[in-house]
Amino acid sequence: MKFTPVFSTIDTQRRLLFKKTLFPLAAAVAAATALATFSLQVQADEGQWQPHQLPQLKSELKRIGITIPAEKLADLGKHPMSAMASLGGCSASFVSNAGLAVTNHHCAYGAVQRNSSAARNLIADGFLAKTLAEELPAGPSERIYVTDKVETVTARVTGGLAAGLSGRERHEQIQRRIKALILECEQDKAYRCSVPSFHRGMEYYRIRQLMIRDVRLVYAPSDKIGNFGGDVDNFEWPRHTGDFAFLRAYVGKDGRPADPSPGNVPYRSKDFLQISAEGLKAGDPILLAGYPGRTSRYKLPVEIRHARDIGYPRLVTEAQADLNEIARATQDNPESVVRYASVAKSINNRMKKSQGLIDGFARKDIAAIKDVQNTEFRLWFARHGKDAGLLSELEQVIAADIALSEQEFAWTVATHSEMLRSARTLYRLALERNKPDAERESGYQERDLAFIKARLTRLEQSFVSSVDQARWQAALQRYAALPANAHPAGVDALLPAASSIAALYTQTRLSNTAQRLGWMDKNADDMAQSDEPFLQLAAKLYQAGDQLEKNRKEVDGNLERIIPRYMQAVIAWKKSQGKPVYADANSTLRVTFGTVAPYSQRDGISKGPFTTVEGIAEKSSDKAPFITPAALLDAVKARRYGAYRDAALGTVPVNFLSSADTTGGNSGSAVMNKRGELVGLNFDSTYESVTKDWYFDSSITRAIHVDIRYMLWVMQELDHADNLLKEMTIRYPHR
Amino acid sequence: MKFTPVFSTIDTQRRLLFKKTLFPLAAAVAAATALATFSLQVQADEGQWQPHQLPQLKSELKRIGITIPAEKLADLGKHPMSAMASLGGCSASFVSNAGLAVTNHHCAYGAVQRNSSAARNLIADGFLAKTLAEELPAGPSERIYVTDKVETVTARVTGGLAAGLSGRERHEQIQRRIKALILECEQDKAYRCSVPSFHRGMEYYRIRQLMIRDVRLVYAPSDKIGNFGGDVDNFEWPRHTGDFAFLRAYVGKDGRPADPSPGNVPYRSKDFLQISAEGLKAGDPILLAGYPGRTSRYKLPVEIRHARDIGYPRLVTEAQADLNEIARATQDNPESVVRYASVAKSINNRMKKSQGLIDGFARKDIAAIKDVQNTEFRLWFARHGKDAGLLSELEQVIAADIALSEQEFAWTVATHSEMLRSARTLYRLALERNKPDAERESGYQERDLAFIKARLTRLEQSFVSSVDQARWQAALQRYAALPANAHPAGVDALLPAASSIAALYTQTRLSNTAQRLGWMDKNADDMAQSDEPFLQLAAKLYQAGDQLEKNRKEVDGNLERIIPRYMQAVIAWKKSQGKPVYADANSTLRVTFGTVAPYSQRDGISKGPFTTVEGIAEKSSDKAPFITPAALLDAVKARRYGAYRDAALGTVPVNFLSSADTTGGNSGSAVMNKRGELVGLNFDSTYESVTKDWYFDSSITRAIHVDIRYMLWVMQELDHADNLLKEMTIRYPHR
Repeated sequence: MKFTPVFSTIDTQRRLLFKKTLFPLAAAVAAATALATFSLQVQADEGQWQPHQLPQLKSELKRIGITIPAEKLADLGKHPMSAMASLGGCSASFVSNAGLAVTNHHCAYGAVQRNSSAARNLIADGFLAKTLAEELPAGPSERIYVTDKVETVTARVTGGLAAGLSGRERHEQIQRRIKALILECEQDKAYRCSVPSFHRGMEYYRIRQLMIRDVRLVYAPSDKIGNFGGDVDNFEWPRHTGDFAFLRAYVGKDGRPADPSPGNVPYRSKDFLQISAEGLKAGDPILLAGYPGRTSRYKLPVEIRHARDIGYPRLVTEAQADLNEIARATQDNPESVVRYASVAKSINNRMKKSQGLIDGFARKDIAAIKDVQNTEFRLWFARHGKDAGLLSELEQVIAADIALSEQEFAWTVATHSEMLRSARTLYRLALERNKPDAERESGYQERDLAFIKARLTRLEQSFVSSVDQARWQAALQRYAALPANAHPAGVDALLPAASSIAALYTQTRLSNTAQRLGWMDKNADDMAQSDEPFLQLAAKLYQAGDQLEKNRKEVDGNLERIIPRYMQAVIAWKKSQGKPVYADANSTLRVTFGTVAPYSQRDGISKGPFTTVEGIAEKSSDKAPFITPAALLDAVKARRYGAYRDAALGTVPVNFLSSADTTGGNSGSAVMNKRGELVGLNFDSTYESVTKDWYFDSSITRAIHVDIRYMLWVMQELDHADNLLKEMTIRYPHR
Repeated sequence: MKFTPVFSTIDTQRRLLFKKTLFPLAAAVAAATALATFSLQVQADEGQWQPHQLPQLKSELKRIGITIPAEKLADLGKHPMSAMASLGGCSASFVSNAGLAVTNHHCAYGAVQRNSSAARNLIADGFLAKTLAEELPAGPSERIYVTDKVETVTARVTGGLAAGLSGRERHEQIQRRIKALILECEQDKAYRCSVPSFHRGMEYYRIRQLMIRDVRLVYAPSDKIGNFGGDVDNFEWPRHTGDFAFLRAYVGKDGRPADPSPGNVPYRSKDFLQISAEGLKAGDPILLAGYPGRTSRYKLPVEIRHARDIGYPRLVTEAQADLNEIARATQDNPESVVRYASVAKSINNRMKKSQGLIDGFARKDIAAIKDVQNTEFRLWFARHGKDAGLLSELEQVIAADIALSEQEFAWTVATHSEMLRSARTLYRLALERNKPDAERESGYQERDLAFIKARLTRLEQSFVSSVDQARWQAALQRYAALPANAHPAGVDALLPAASSIAALYTQTRLSNTAQRLGWMDKNADDMAQSDEPFLQLAAKLYQAGDQLEKNRKEVDGNLERIIPRYMQAVIAWKKSQGKPVYADANSTLRVTFGTVAPYSQRDGISKGPFTTVEGIAEKSSDKAPFITPAALLDAVKARRYGAYRDAALGTVPVNFLSSADTTGGNSGSAVMNKRGELVGLNFDSTYESVTKDWYFDSSITRAIHVDIRYMLWVMQELDHADNLLKEMTIRYPHR
């Protein structure tokens, strides 16, 4: 039986198909169907499943051809899930019994960058440690997390909360309970614990992760391979990026996580993935495990329309304005350009994604699709729902959420200064330190100090005083131009005039890292009375920020009360149709599955599922980001495909597409074949897929993966990483 | 066994694959191979075969799945070849036993246009005759030709020619013999005969065609369907053009061709095609029969380089300059714009094709491929050739051909005036009329007079005196700017100054059709002494033009002597490899075959093989050429696919791609399934294919066809052409 999860029924699509704006969908469906003539089955592979849910999906897993039993996949202690890892923001997996972990090149970029110098440019040249001794420290804030325990703690978080609490009171009680649960869990200092909510407060799980603090860089190809295509190709297909790198987890001699030290030894993970050099072909099933960050699949039409019409457009405008400012402020100083390169890259990425969402919403009227689904749900709810008042309460809370978000946006623009941000962190920390640890705001507890310090330290890598000043000056002008009712109460009077902030930057010493860190254990009054202008300003602004935060807690508390009731109704509705439901992504370990599949965004054209090394030569030029190592071009010319030639393609595949359901955070996720062998790494999705964060459109949503055969080929043919090829367990195809 | 015809061996491609400029080929090969994973077999379907050659290709036809015996296909008197027709420049086929012929909309465009008026715009509204009586005259110069006899006459054309003849003497003797063969054949006035040469003089066939002179317009959809996409989509994929129309052949009551007359009756063709509403799917074999115009597959590298580096670039420059001139000269006069619309369209088409050739040559170094083939041939020839001196003689003649073509080009620019062209035709006709008919230059014999008259008459449709003057004026300036050594001897002194031609246009009466035709039976001296300035100029220029023509005959005679010797050697070489050889296209009936197949011009993207009606809605806008009839959009929205829904696509296919070998002249060619049933009409090829006139690259060469199911769907759903659907024999799929 084929099921279709919440909010993407084919029926709904059909019914909506013939609204004028929806024609591209019709074409896409037709094209997808057309692809089926090529003996491919394109699946509606929506769903970022918690591992424990997989047994519900047994028949679906079997139907697409996954041979690992669903029960085994659900067990974090068993293969292959026990080989999964998180880098905090990126995903990874172990590929040897000595802590060797594979992830994306862009996820290891920081480690490569910090080990680079003008004399030894690891970014351009790549890096390979031939022995353990040659491996380089990935950096003091690099972590490898291994999820080893997931407990349901909903009752302990939400049980017996008084009925009449205000939103903020309720939120704060929940936060207190969560902190206690974490404290309990982190008694063993080897672990980092968290209690994320699922379905916006409906369920809570306590997740325990082994936190490995000694991470080293093992191997990264040249960025001519690892970042081939760069920003030009970002989100695009055809794609030819060798986005992979290797790290190694180190622990103390006792096998437990330890601070970085030469005496540490490679971590012996419980498990690691074997590698299939056979790769995949079109139509093959895949499994993908990783840590997707955030999706919004269950939002109401009104929330989608706000994001579409206001949220994303202003994100793009803001990002573009900020980029212009950075460009202007750095233009005469090559060193500043370098220092802001990764900042600009990240803003660019966010802007491209937002623009993709705007384009996607214009192409397909997702709000209208949600309207239909919402109406269907309301019809069902009118007959079967038992929670009178739910829907009107929900609407009120969401309206309040949207209204508050306008002020929060304005506040973000008004305080768009890295100097001010650091000062505010320091001032807030000083205030929180006055409380017992358990009562401090999350993020300012003892367990967070190392992260705060790392963040305050890292600023030096991407900060130039004059640039920060120019950005903030421009932001203050943009803030002034926002509608007056969006300005948070009282803030305008506290902000410096755009024309007067130059003096603040002249006077401050916070731009010096040692000075900055020096304030970490000072008290709040000292700060307010100091001659440090940003700390003075932080103190002055504190109340206004605190009020916004209290308002947020009030709204969040109300959301946490009402959304679970709404989701229970939605789940009951879906259950009545025999459909399982997954929670929105929340940076926890999820499993998704799908098939290797092309897609069509335009009638008569099909994209993917594979690109090949010949395509690299096709794109190759003497201009970055398309400069290609001569050795690679030579190998292609000579057709030195080695064992990595795909029989059907006649050459080495580079990237491929699958219908799996991914999002940001899934970067570096292991892509596995039906047996759970590693066949690729997830690293991006197509531009047309970007709206999947709101609505999963199975006809065009495709994740982009780097093919394991390309990785192995680069390791063997170009970089001669024989030590790693030997360390991993690679199953070669029988020929 | 898979054979590869002359000049496209896979081996050669392989060997050339790794020149830097050839990478796109490698990618294309890889992509084509990738497509094979979709259970499609892409064939090297090169070859425009004379029907009598098909028995040599028996095993190939069988292998791709054609079930009609090759011997039957070779017989023009048997089904399906006996259902084929030519419109002279376009191809067609009979689809009923009452002379109903189907061809492209663009091939019937003249007939639609001449029956249109401001009050009754058949171009925009389409036209459907519900009864025979409602059918409209297609025009006095419209013809339908049916090839009914092909005889080899090589011995009669070239046998016993004296050895020592000059090129021109030899050419003239051959022309005399050809005229005699035609005269003999045309004793029966029902026929039009020709004696084209194959392999540039190696073989001659006498071809007899029934020439039907009463042709009527039966049905043409609106140009919103028939020319959907217009010039924007011309040569492009994805394509959504309903490029089809129906004509009917009428004959006298005795069954023989007759002048148009209300008393004529529908022609009962020997045969007609049945129609398969089942259509085709990806990978299916197709047969395509029609009248391809001209190809240059056997040219030497030096000729290709000349075309690439000089010929096409200057064609594009000339076309663009001429288009600019037309635009300037018509800009303030909407009527002039209309009058030059089809002229501009045709220049645009030529320019886009030339640009496509330039782009194609840049993408793939075809000259280099030919160099390799030429070297291979020379190596073989050195061992096995018996014709000493052949190759150096060949090079000399081709050098002379290229040199002469420079002067011919300059002459064309210098005389780029429709008025002058008409005058020169009249003056030449007057001179030729002094000779016995058999001795007149081909084109000026009694049999040609009706065509000359039609041409001189038709000018009125696309002529405005001021525009012609402006075009010629600009052309004379371009001529003046050409290198002096390209100017034909003596011509410069005879040409009027660009600044003085205004007076010629003021004075001439040739712009009046009656006046123009009135000169058709005047003698040359009267013309030279008349006060008609263009006739005076024609007389003055005659010697220079005649000299160029004599030079051309000298070169052609030498080519006709040497090329057959060369081709014999090439054929022997190919025969030694077991490979059959086809002759370049020469507007004679040819058969080609292939498979329904997508292609990839860029790694990771596949185009085709089908587009669908949803794609029309996708492209639809309120701007020509993408305005779509509301009825079509409504039918798509309502999914009223009728019997024409493709099971795999889930909708009605519009256009499709095949690997068949076509060129200009193949417009309107019947596309048949393995059983010889009509499944589509050829109408274009993709932009990337344009270089196929020089080199057939099986990985990217694709012809574009309109799908029979779209034709039938439009006829049924939109235009209610029930009478025609009933008249045809349509086999519907069993459901």
